[in-house]
Amino acid sequence: MTQLYLQDLAPGQVFHTAAITVERDAIIRFASEFDPQPFHLDDAAGRDSPLGGLAASGWHTAAMTMRLYVDSDFRLAGGSIGAGMEELRWPRPVFPGDVLRVRIEILGARASKTRPGHGIVRMRCTTLNQRDEPVQIYVSAVLCRSRPD
Amino acid sequence: MTQLYLQDLAPGQVFHTAAITVERDAIIRFASEFDPQPFHLDDAAGRDSPLGGLAASGWHTAAMTMRLYVDSDFRLAGGSIGAGMEELRWPRPVFPGDVLRVRIEILGARASKTRPGHGIVRMRCTTLNQRDEPVQIYVSAVLCRSRPD
Repeated sequence: MTQLYLQDLAPGQVFHTAAITVERDAIIRFASEFDPQPFHLDDAAGRDSPLGGLAASGWHTAAMTMRLYVDSDFRLAGGSIGAGMEELRWPRPVFPGDVLRVRIEILGARASKTRPGHGIVRMRCTTLNQRDEPVQIYVSAVLCRSRPD
Repeated sequence: MTQLYLQDLAPGQVFHTAAITVERDAIIRFASEFDPQPFHLDDAAGRDSPLGGLAASGWHTAAMTMRLYVDSDFRLAGGSIGAGMEELRWPRPVFPGDVLRVRIEILGARASKTRPGHGIVRMRCTTLNQRDEPVQIYVSAVLCRSRPD
């Protein structure tokens, strides 16, 4: 697996992850531990909510997105440590049986002002369902290594 | 438990959650499933990384924050469904043994333009460790119900 350094990255580059099917049991298990609200746990409560059905916690979608990202070919040297997000949105719910994948688009890459030998990569990660509809969009800044001389 | 409606919320209100101790096993278990990067799994890899030690995935911190929020006295009628975040930052790592709690500050509350009977609450949620240092900060917009006439 090729490791990517700051010098390898440029605006406009796009990377794609594999896909994962979201299991109903996984939705309920995650919600039971971290976001035990009725619409993440129960069909009837989901239907009666603005989500329109039993749906994954947004944080579960974020966590699944991270797993797809980590397992993808987009592999920063030294790993991906998030410095922060400018935005994070969940434009539509994630339902049992949905198939998710992530599109990673490089928006910029620059040297770090404070950390020698490192840079900051700005990227938009869009999580899409099986109908190519965005279910999560974030823009983040991630620390990355500069290629050794 | 009192349920809060749009009319109950005003800028400047502050709510506090209970606290949770972050267990080493929980850090490794979450990371194994969702963010299997070495610095979230292994002490030596953590020490060799910019995190400075085995540290929780930021998404784990976000998930633990959500659990503290859901279990708190800040209970919106109809539950908390996030419309989106303006920012999400992890200013410092979360290490095993850290004790986290969340400060919820209402920034604004207004009627929804598109969803009758609902409003949007804007809030800043700051997750603090046992030294009162922020480990996560986000500003989010959450759907809430208007009080029935």
